[in-house]
Amino acid sequence: MSAPIIAIDAMGGDFGPRCIVPASLECLAEIPSLHLTLVGQSSLIEEIVALHPGTDRARLQIVHADEAIGMHERPAQALRGKPGSSMRIALELVRDGKAQACVSAGNTGALMALARQVLKTLPGVDRPAMVTAIPTRANPCLLLDLGANVDCTAEQLYQFAVMGSVAAQVLGVERPKVALLNVGTEDIKGNQQVRQAAALLQQADLDYRGFIEGDGLYRGEVDVAVCDGFVGNILLKSSEGLAQMVSERVELLFKRSLLARLVGGLALPLLRKLRADLRPAQYNGASFLGLQGIVVKSHGGAGKESFKWAIRRATQDVRYNLPEQLHERLEHRLVCARATERGDDVTASDGSPSN
Amino acid sequence: MSAPIIAIDAMGGDFGPRCIVPASLECLAEIPSLHLTLVGQSSLIEEIVALHPGTDRARLQIVHADEAIGMHERPAQALRGKPGSSMRIALELVRDGKAQACVSAGNTGALMALARQVLKTLPGVDRPAMVTAIPTRANPCLLLDLGANVDCTAEQLYQFAVMGSVAAQVLGVERPKVALLNVGTEDIKGNQQVRQAAALLQQADLDYRGFIEGDGLYRGEVDVAVCDGFVGNILLKSSEGLAQMVSERVELLFKRSLLARLVGGLALPLLRKLRADLRPAQYNGASFLGLQGIVVKSHGGAGKESFKWAIRRATQDVRYNLPEQLHERLEHRLVCARATERGDDVTASDGSPSN
Repeated sequence: MSAPIIAIDAMGGDFGPRCIVPASLECLAEIPSLHLTLVGQSSLIEEIVALHPGTDRARLQIVHADEAIGMHERPAQALRGKPGSSMRIALELVRDGKAQACVSAGNTGALMALARQVLKTLPGVDRPAMVTAIPTRANPCLLLDLGANVDCTAEQLYQFAVMGSVAAQVLGVERPKVALLNVGTEDIKGNQQVRQAAALLQQADLDYRGFIEGDGLYRGEVDVAVCDGFVGNILLKSSEGLAQMVSERVELLFKRSLLARLVGGLALPLLRKLRADLRPAQYNGASFLGLQGIVVKSHGGAGKESFKWAIRRATQDVRYNLPEQLHERLEHRLVCARATERGDDVTASDGSPSN
Repeated sequence: MSAPIIAIDAMGGDFGPRCIVPASLECLAEIPSLHLTLVGQSSLIEEIVALHPGTDRARLQIVHADEAIGMHERPAQALRGKPGSSMRIALELVRDGKAQACVSAGNTGALMALARQVLKTLPGVDRPAMVTAIPTRANPCLLLDLGANVDCTAEQLYQFAVMGSVAAQVLGVERPKVALLNVGTEDIKGNQQVRQAAALLQQADLDYRGFIEGDGLYRGEVDVAVCDGFVGNILLKSSEGLAQMVSERVELLFKRSLLARLVGGLALPLLRKLRADLRPAQYNGASFLGLQGIVVKSHGGAGKESFKWAIRRATQDVRYNLPEQLHERLEHRLVCARATERGDDVTASDGSPSN
């Protein structure tokens, strides 16, 4: 792949084009090989672009979209109404090969529904999952699902684990350690879905390490941690909230104390570095796994810096060519697992399924 | 209440009496009005007590228990087998008025099952919830359930919200703001249980603020946040893990950099304070809400310092006399809510239920 083209849904998120267009233009200036297609109200976008005279227009395209999907719209509305929404058009650009990835800060449910309809899932995948890498005391850990699926069956959790494991391999982990998030590490712990998913994973061809608790996650005990989107979303957002609270406390601590004023100027750069390391913006953007195309969901409340991270994530996903890698490695595993779950003997010599 | 007596299950937790007995003796020395009853293998307990010659034996009782409940035992086993377990005997001391609270680091499922059997729930309460106060950018927030109930119905979530609100009042918040944890703040977000619980809470006599996300929790937007035990447990433990990771990073940052060595001695006390503020041990111990007695569950992996916090929490619960306060304020509310949920018109003048 020479120059990646990324389609941006310019109308999504809490702040819309006034935040997304400047973020996009800054990324364009920063990454010389990047091409962007901004999708949305073209007159408004042009207006904002005009405020940035240094923009390399050769690498910037604007595609008009009449409509935008509201942050509170139901997925069904997004699917049936609004055929000309910026979100749908951005996804269609990916489907038609006119872009290699789509980035949207629009509402998760609508993006999930439209992405499934426009791009389709990979063979063997029921529902895509949202994934991101979270920092731990050891290596980063891929956490999924982050909110695309609030309720999950055991089979779906199983699929997420397999997809997560393949994604970690693509990112360079030779034999990723995979675990299910649970309220304890013993077999008897947890709800039915998680215990059934464990039974499926025990037979799977991956390095399944059983259950992991929330603290084990940040100790970096595994490379991939799997949960339903309800748990994952609350975990991720509460972690962001806590990290922000802590970095503020660190600064306050140094600002308030008399001693700190002495230390003042010396310690400040260190504190800034810490704050940058923990800044939630840096981890903004979750990739959809399991689609026939790259879609990155930015946090709806993302500001400019934060949205830029989502674009950077999309360029990285394009470089790794995640959907194709997943396609190649997934199909056999998921199809096999389904046969096993149904009770079929996939190794039977007479070839006939047992029921 | 003059001198509180607290019954300690000395055999629970990952480290057993070797950790719990010293923690108990240190608390005894620290709180002059405290009386403790250690329940477990008496010879072993005596042996450890003998290593602490300064102990005020007048405030310490040892009650022998033949058996202990293993960390991996199923709740059903704990209920039916082992009538002489340390956990059960400690709870019976509370039931019989020989202690005002019980503290155990034993397995959550067994403690929940035994506590319900021995102490019973308060009228109107289906299942007790585990609650703790977490630090936020504003006031501490009561979070429940923390793992006593992995699956919860809407009605149970509703009961937790009411109990949490009353508990916050008892702790001094005049009109506690209550919210349900969810993956978004819009009405359409979340799973069925959480949406149904929202419908119940909208009609309830408390300051219900709708849905809250994980980051809003740490921003201190509400005084009480409600979720099922699966979500709450993973949220709490991941927060502990993250806090620990961050405080380590802060220290490393200062130790590693050259500049930091200069700042070194000056900054160290500040860093220690931060670490202490964030230490998970400080938030150890969750109170069961909804029982006819005070039970505090310590983290199974709690070390000595951490277990001491669970004992301190129990003395605080005794001071506030939480079960009695809950009893007085709960019954009417929960009974009303049930009638409403069934579709009874509780205000109907003819008094007949509508179905």
